[in-house]
Amino acid sequence: MPFVVKLNISITMNYRIEKDTMGEVQVPADKFWGAQTERSRNNFKIGPEGSMPTEIIEAFAYLKKAAAFTNTDLGVLPSEKRDMIAKVCEEILEGKLNDQFPLVIWQTGSGTQSNMNVNEVIANRSHVNAGGNLGDKTEVHPNDDVNKSQSSNDTYPTAMHIAAYKKVVETTIPAVEKLRDTLAEKTEAFKNIVKIGRTHLMDATPLTLGQEFSGYVAQLNYGIKALKNTLPHLSELALGGTAVGTGLNTPQGYDVKVAEYIAKFTNLPLVTAENKFEALAAHDAIVESHGALKQLAVSLYKIAQDVRLLASGPRSGIGEIHIPENEPGSSIMPGKVNPTQNEALTMVCAQVLGNDTTISFAGTQGNYELNVFKPVMAYNFLQSAQLIADACISFNDHCAVGIEPNHERIKELVDKSLMLVTALNTHIGYENAAKIAKTAHKNGTTLKEEAINLGFVTSEQFDEWVKPEDMVGGLK
Amino acid sequence: MPFVVKLNISITMNYRIEKDTMGEVQVPADKFWGAQTERSRNNFKIGPEGSMPTEIIEAFAYLKKAAAFTNTDLGVLPSEKRDMIAKVCEEILEGKLNDQFPLVIWQTGSGTQSNMNVNEVIANRSHVNAGGNLGDKTEVHPNDDVNKSQSSNDTYPTAMHIAAYKKVVETTIPAVEKLRDTLAEKTEAFKNIVKIGRTHLMDATPLTLGQEFSGYVAQLNYGIKALKNTLPHLSELALGGTAVGTGLNTPQGYDVKVAEYIAKFTNLPLVTAENKFEALAAHDAIVESHGALKQLAVSLYKIAQDVRLLASGPRSGIGEIHIPENEPGSSIMPGKVNPTQNEALTMVCAQVLGNDTTISFAGTQGNYELNVFKPVMAYNFLQSAQLIADACISFNDHCAVGIEPNHERIKELVDKSLMLVTALNTHIGYENAAKIAKTAHKNGTTLKEEAINLGFVTSEQFDEWVKPEDMVGGLK
Amino acid sequence: MPFVVKLNISITMNYRIEKDTMGEVQVPADKFWGAQTERSRNNFKIGPEGSMPTEIIEAFAYLKKAAAFTNTDLGVLPSEKRDMIAKVCEEILEGKLNDQFPLVIWQTGSGTQSNMNVNEVIANRSHVNAGGNLGDKTEVHPNDDVNKSQSSNDTYPTAMHIAAYKKVVETTIPAVEKLRDTLAEKTEAFKNIVKIGRTHLMDATPLTLGQEFSGYVAQLNYGIKALKNTLPHLSELALGGTAVGTGLNTPQGYDVKVAEYIAKFTNLPLVTAENKFEALAAHDAIVESHGALKQLAVSLYKIAQDVRLLASGPRSGIGEIHIPENEPGSSIMPGKVNPTQNEALTMVCAQVLGNDTTISFAGTQGNYELNVFKPVMAYNFLQSAQLIADACISFNDHCAVGIEPNHERIKELVDKSLMLVTALNTHIGYENAAKIAKTAHKNGTTLKEEAINLGFVTSEQFDEWVKPEDMVGGLK
Amino acid sequence: MPFVVKLNISITMNYRIEKDTMGEVQVPADKFWGAQTERSRNNFKIGPEGSMPTEIIEAFAYLKKAAAFTNTDLGVLPSEKRDMIAKVCEEILEGKLNDQFPLVIWQTGSGTQSNMNVNEVIANRSHVNAGGNLGDKTEVHPNDDVNKSQSSNDTYPTAMHIAAYKKVVETTIPAVEKLRDTLAEKTEAFKNIVKIGRTHLMDATPLTLGQEFSGYVAQLNYGIKALKNTLPHLSELALGGTAVGTGLNTPQGYDVKVAEYIAKFTNLPLVTAENKFEALAAHDAIVESHGALKQLAVSLYKIAQDVRLLASGPRSGIGEIHIPENEPGSSIMPGKVNPTQNEALTMVCAQVLGNDTTISFAGTQGNYELNVFKPVMAYNFLQSAQLIADACISFNDHCAVGIEPNHERIKELVDKSLMLVTALNTHIGYENAAKIAKTAHKNGTTLKEEAINLGFVTSEQFDEWVKPEDMVGGLK
Repeated sequence: MPFVVKLNISITMNYRIEKDTMGEVQVPADKFWGAQTERSRNNFKIGPEGSMPTEIIEAFAYLKKAAAFTNTDLGVLPSEKRDMIAKVCEEILEGKLNDQFPLVIWQTGSGTQSNMNVNEVIANRSHVNAGGNLGDKTEVHPNDDVNKSQSSNDTYPTAMHIAAYKKVVETTIPAVEKLRDTLAEKTEAFKNIVKIGRTHLMDATPLTLGQEFSGYVAQLNYGIKALKNTLPHLSELALGGTAVGTGLNTPQGYDVKVAEYIAKFTNLPLVTAENKFEALAAHDAIVESHGALKQLAVSLYKIAQDVRLLASGPRSGIGEIHIPENEPGSSIMPGKVNPTQNEALTMVCAQVLGNDTTISFAGTQGNYELNVFKPVMAYNFLQSAQLIADACISFNDHCAVGIEPNHERIKELVDKSLMLVTALNTHIGYENAAKIAKTAHKNGTTLKEEAINLGFVTSEQFDEWVKPEDMVGGLK
Repeated sequence: MPFVVKLNISITMNYRIEKDTMGEVQVPADKFWGAQTERSRNNFKIGPEGSMPTEIIEAFAYLKKAAAFTNTDLGVLPSEKRDMIAKVCEEILEGKLNDQFPLVIWQTGSGTQSNMNVNEVIANRSHVNAGGNLGDKTEVHPNDDVNKSQSSNDTYPTAMHIAAYKKVVETTIPAVEKLRDTLAEKTEAFKNIVKIGRTHLMDATPLTLGQEFSGYVAQLNYGIKALKNTLPHLSELALGGTAVGTGLNTPQGYDVKVAEYIAKFTNLPLVTAENKFEALAAHDAIVESHGALKQLAVSLYKIAQDVRLLASGPRSGIGEIHIPENEPGSSIMPGKVNPTQNEALTMVCAQVLGNDTTISFAGTQGNYELNVFKPVMAYNFLQSAQLIADACISFNDHCAVGIEPNHERIKELVDKSLMLVTALNTHIGYENAAKIAKTAHKNGTTLKEEAINLGFVTSEQFDEWVKPEDMVGGLK
Repeated sequence: MPFVVKLNISITMNYRIEKDTMGEVQVPADKFWGAQTERSRNNFKIGPEGSMPTEIIEAFAYLKKAAAFTNTDLGVLPSEKRDMIAKVCEEILEGKLNDQFPLVIWQTGSGTQSNMNVNEVIANRSHVNAGGNLGDKTEVHPNDDVNKSQSSNDTYPTAMHIAAYKKVVETTIPAVEKLRDTLAEKTEAFKNIVKIGRTHLMDATPLTLGQEFSGYVAQLNYGIKALKNTLPHLSELALGGTAVGTGLNTPQGYDVKVAEYIAKFTNLPLVTAENKFEALAAHDAIVESHGALKQLAVSLYKIAQDVRLLASGPRSGIGEIHIPENEPGSSIMPGKVNPTQNEALTMVCAQVLGNDTTISFAGTQGNYELNVFKPVMAYNFLQSAQLIADACISFNDHCAVGIEPNHERIKELVDKSLMLVTALNTHIGYENAAKIAKTAHKNGTTLKEEAINLGFVTSEQFDEWVKPEDMVGGLK
Repeated sequence: MPFVVKLNISITMNYRIEKDTMGEVQVPADKFWGAQTERSRNNFKIGPEGSMPTEIIEAFAYLKKAAAFTNTDLGVLPSEKRDMIAKVCEEILEGKLNDQFPLVIWQTGSGTQSNMNVNEVIANRSHVNAGGNLGDKTEVHPNDDVNKSQSSNDTYPTAMHIAAYKKVVETTIPAVEKLRDTLAEKTEAFKNIVKIGRTHLMDATPLTLGQEFSGYVAQLNYGIKALKNTLPHLSELALGGTAVGTGLNTPQGYDVKVAEYIAKFTNLPLVTAENKFEALAAHDAIVESHGALKQLAVSLYKIAQDVRLLASGPRSGIGEIHIPENEPGSSIMPGKVNPTQNEALTMVCAQVLGNDTTISFAGTQGNYELNVFKPVMAYNFLQSAQLIADACISFNDHCAVGIEPNHERIKELVDKSLMLVTALNTHIGYENAAKIAKTAHKNGTTLKEEAINLGFVTSEQFDEWVKPEDMVGGLK
């Protein structure tokens, strides 16, 4: 049997001394971060270390590079520094510095310290890239160079929007579309399978299984559209607003140009925000887009719930469809198989609903020029967008694609339904039709027997008027 | 002093007997409703009687009239019956039958009984309009005529969409726009008033009061846009789907035509739903539009909160703006005035956030062909839409229009701010600038004093570089 | 046929002039309220007039009377004024002045204006009771007498607690207990009915119908206990804290004594709050008790959902129980009957979940010495407490009491279940048992057939080991 | 400079073949888990691998050991197997097998696969511990031995309760108490510092800073009490209910005894659940305890918000207290310091509010004999309990302990307050007092000047009656 030997050796020098405007701090000697990152690490031991989403760090890499390019273009940063900064940004994007971002979500509400984490890592790493020793004074200053023409107050929300936009268009929407496409195929495949309808969980008039699935497709189409409707707001970047939205300490034309660079680097249609005050003090774009994610969760819940109800059984449930059997369902009940993908998906939906409460709450709590709930909003947003995507793909691959009708069961149930009587309304009126259904229900007989017994129709009329396949209409 | 005499005389005959498919029921003799309404009244004594929103009843009037016209056009209802039905619908819309709809929200989740309430009232009232006695058998049958080509399952969601759409475009959006316009006027009026900015509730670099207000305007503009984005989905009507979405018992072309009549009667751009299965089994359009109402609540909260913080004092708060004094603020503290409009508005926002939880939850809980949380969704939606509208107008008229700057206080605070030091960053670097600010903070002195003392700038340089009015940027 | 003539004559004199510290106000001439109430009426046209809950007004009547008695006892109010005040409080409690409280929820967040509404009505009404003319200067001053030793800041939260406590113990708990008792009776009645169990909606090992219902009883018992656990906090009254919690302008011993009077008048074990600062600035007691109401909603949802699933059908669902048929279920499908009580109850639960979001949000938003979300908290709390009560009684009376097992269907389903195989685990091991179940499932055969075919057991062993009635255990 | 060499060597054999009742599966050759774990790993790629909380795995270790002991005591498991199982459980608790639990939250809603993950690891590891080769058939069977007398349906909820109870009493409550104690010390230290009160964010009558802080202490005391009230329900363990609550396949007395063992091993007062049907099908205990965590979040939000408002400035805010300066506050504004601990804590509170929505939603969604939202409930509960604890300690250590009054500012604000006029109410009446305050406000003068000018009091009377230190009352 083949095997692999992995050998990881890490040599940790204890500490070096770093300084910021508050004084000296001991920093792990092999880490590129500096004093402010280390302060934050020590001051915020809340939840798991490194919980600031990677997507946010990557978004910072895009924006720091874009800022450096813009600063150089506008004459406020030498091109050598630009290149040094850009190189580290590339390294971050390649995942080479993943262990350099230890900070948590539960820090300063502006994400200041994650901004400084990135600034410090870029400054120190670029110095090392240039052949210097880690811990020496760097050519590239974390505030004066890396953070030039920026503030945490405009970089963090910019990173939020980049990360959120990218996640939504590259991960969430394609995943939902994948599931939507599978359900659309089922809609087509099942279009002639007439089955009993159910309203109030009670037997109702028939429809086709394809019609039933067409409702799911419609839900996801509306959800995707709703999510796309929110993208223009989400595409607006705060960068250029700096501390309070006025753009203090930015060169002329900076905001538009930096957004163009970000758009170019990310290949996403991002633009500068029309109003920087709104972009710092409120995060309604996050509220708006997450509202659409929540809508998708609402839709997905209904779909997943329906599928497991339809597949319930095998002998004491509805059993109209089969879903794939993926794993033994019970540690005690042998042979049991459960709708586990549906359960994972519905749990994800429950999570997204809660995340929406958090995001909405956080969205209300901006004061004056700044909303200081940025990291918690980013965290919940990215979690929802990722979970919906992952769960859609998982549900698609391990459940939806394998859904098959149980023809025998479907036929059995539609045939004995009492609600076929509805077809008689237009012939004998609602009240007489009701009498037939109630009598058959009471006597455990068929509609036809009682319809004839009660004298409302002849056998021929019944057969002509009560045809399930004629009751499913011309509607899609 | 002039006075008015109001004379109300009501004559109540005890009861009459009405029948439905389940048997006989005693009904108040002077009421037009029938057996099913009365059953519901007795079976659902939950919350205040008559809590089904009036807007829903009115929407039913529109749709019943439209259905009658369509049925006649398509040859399944005599024109005499159409006219009898239409006449009662007009009476409902004129408010003449307001005391005929006693049912509650907390009934059947499909709103079946409110549909029947309308059917019964129309049937009985039309008989009386035609000169008959209330209690006689009616020419117009509640199910076979008034409800022809309909089911509760498609009428109630149609009524929801009509009522919600109408409320949003006729009430909510104009009210938010009114407030938005007032804030836009303030933005213009305050555009040259330089004030201290605040981030993390702490003193920051300056901006203009107009810039601060421009953020509010932007928030409301985004909110209005987000709400309008949801209207196409909300404009889709379920009518024509009947029991399960297949359109059973409807004549050919009914769904499109009935939507056209509704659009004509309501003067709203309503259309038939593309997919009737979605339109019955899910209410994602309600979830979607209420998500936008919730976003507006998030925005309004931030605005109202800022305004009361800015107006706080009069002597121990921020005090940068004055808001109108509308009523004595305290039953014990003489002379106290409070930001009461802000409080009403923020309470409304809290309500809307809770309503969103209810609506999202309810939205997930459809099963198979029907979501049976329709009335609770309608109730919460209409409450939110109305409360936001009312509160925006109230806040606008009694607070926003009267907001005035306290020039003296604004100047006092901006002049002594330490964060003006930020303007020196680009001249002497972040670290030296920090030294100045920290020293001045520690010594209780001015930035200029310490900047010169520390030898970083000359007096002339300070005066040239640190000008609040130059720090508010070229950004809007 | 008997009939009744009701003759209501109201004579409305247009207006009289009232004054407060802000000046003159026109007040409807026949109303007892004064200037501040009228200002509020005009300034807060948000939502339906008079939406401040009646329970709050009644609670004010209790506390105003108690304050008057305490003030007299402690020597700061003449006994004549006490008696005049007390008399009007009695009238309020008797419902005689119901049309005198027009204010809305969406007003000042301290409820100041509702406190003044009560103060003004008591002052003016007592003058009229004493033979004076409405509009004259009153002997009893709304602030200096009726509001003596009080502030809105301590009266409104006191009224909230009185109303909430009273509602919970007199309305909510008895209603939940009523339903709990019915379900306990069913538990006993159904204790020997062996049925199929279901987990993940899939067939599982058997239990008795009584066991299934015992879970519901346990849920409600835990919920009632949880709610009772919150009562001590809710029993604490803010009164005596006055404006900011210090008790300014109250005589020595006032807070304890006034709570004693309130306890006496309401016959509820209410006490003075230990810490008045908490009692004004936070409403965690409301958050806490509503948390328990929310827990009950969670439980009730599960119960109502189970019952409708169990009753689903009649021919294409589960159908293990029958529930009462209360009304025709469909306006289009004749003979249809739906689980309407379950729908009303689950909609109520959805509402309570949303109300909890509102209350929790509002609970966070106190600042300094006061939380100004009092009315919205009171409104949502009382709505939840009332709706749960009403819905429990409605569900109890119109559904739960009539639940009956469908013996035939229960037996049919348990007999053909594959999960009875679990009983073989301890004899032949999980893996062999799984083989039996899977083979029977695949072949559409019985467990017994396949168990023998596969050679794992003899016919006799199977019959001895696999007995549903032995699988329901000794657990309650 | 000292340094450390860490050397991690991992040798990965590619795969081995494992089997379950569904067939063969390739499993990483060096991992102890088996076929079902691997199936789940492959079928649920949703969110980060290994996201099932460690606390749940540890709780499983306790319960698997307890089950083995109980099974042996009751004669259904040989003592050798008990010891082999117990040994691996110890290893899990010592953290030696942390890399053996790769499954995610978003799996089967019963947590079946995490139960099987533990079963498989124990079975395989015990075989290796006994000198066997990983991949051989094991003496200890994952289902028949490790899982004996158990089902996922009772083990997972048991693990939830163990983990939740342990977290709450060992982590959350001590942390909240620590903060409470610090605030209580501040209450005592600040008891004589008279300051301005604020209601509606507006100046009000004075209180002491100690009184203000006493409200915070009271809030946390109520919160701790509320949380403790929920512990009895949380202490109840489902174990012994097995598949559907009946206790199928458990020996007599098993449920009580196994709970005793768990109590002994965990040193926690855990007991067997009174009703096992409730314990599987509903998780109201989790809903209940999380409701109390949410209440704490509500309280903590108010406290953290007050502290940052009181500390706001330094020159344009309230500035009545100083909080520790922990890190540079801004990447652009030199010398800025922000209330970062408050921000972390309030973000945590926002998270907990959202988690409560998720948990409540999930709590409603049980069906029949099982709630299949267990992992998402466990995840959110444990996150809330940990975050509250961590954030309380962080806020305590880095903020609360260092809160100091700004005596000068406090005195300045109280001295110029207009609301001291309230002390005159009982001498000259509310209306005259209001005149004084309004005139002083209008003229920008002092209360004393205007009181004398208006002729209501003499200078001596004013000085005698209006003393802030006399207005803070005898109330705590």
